[in-house]
Amino acid sequence: MSKLSPNCPVVRTLDVVGEKWSLLIVRNALRGDTRFSQFRDDLGIPSDVLTARLATLVDAGILEKRAYREPGARERSSYHLTPAGEGLVIIVGAMKKWNDEFNPAAVASSMTLVDPVDGTPLDLAYVGPSGAIHESAALKRPAG
Amino acid sequence: MSKLSPNCPVVRTLDVVGEKWSLLIVRNALRGDTRFSQFRDDLGIPSDVLTARLATLVDAGILEKRAYREPGARERSSYHLTPAGEGLVIIVGAMKKWNDEFNPAAVASSMTLVDPVDGTPLDLAYVGPSGAIHESAALKRPAG
Repeated sequence: MSKLSPNCPVVRTLDVVGEKWSLLIVRNALRGDTRFSQFRDDLGIPSDVLTARLATLVDAGILEKRAYREPGARERSSYHLTPAGEGLVIIVGAMKKWNDEFNPAAVASSMTLVDPVDGTPLDLAYVGPSGAIHESAALKRPAG
Repeated sequence: MSKLSPNCPVVRTLDVVGEKWSLLIVRNALRGDTRFSQFRDDLGIPSDVLTARLATLVDAGILEKRAYREPGARERSSYHLTPAGEGLVIIVGAMKKWNDEFNPAAVASSMTLVDPVDGTPLDLAYVGPSGAIHESAALKRPAG
């Protein structure tokens, strides 16, 4: 039986985006994909799995479903990140930073974090209370 | 058939820590756990699954296996984070920050990032080229 704390942020995040494909769907949504066919064709994910994952992400408040209709076609749904979904960029950005340092690909990814308003390129950094940037971080060990 | 790019940092990170339990084992290791029985008892993970996940994390260069022997007992293995494993704190920290903002637990987690040398509490932040902290980030959309 699992003894996982329901208050642990890692447990809570994995409950939302820990299923296979979920974070890749979020990655694509962060790049601007909104349509079922875009996710399916880019990720190569089976349609039934994609349907299930999109529904889970909608239920979790990460994606919002909207209806659209193209001329001559039936009504379809598009999927748009909520503010909580947009916020997941910090996890994608952390993965990018970890990979760049410890697990770099032969061909560097072009993934870049930017300021959503002015496009300034951004890096994730560890910042102390005074605003100073620190090189590395650790988890504080529990007392005792 | 999957069309996932082998260069995408999200794909590459999920290849290393995307299996269920892997990131929770890393979380415990970041807190100081090193022994099989600590991981098993704290996580409530079945022994056969824990054995498999530890082996995968060793193969991936996240954990290093060392032998130890307690008086009167047989030799056992302990598991220690490599530098790449210690670096995963950025992903755990990103999960904490996302949860605090968008998915807070009823009881706040006591998980805290600190400077590994002097213990200064640290926050993850988006930093621009000039060192300025930005409130939010987005993924740069591919051109075209």
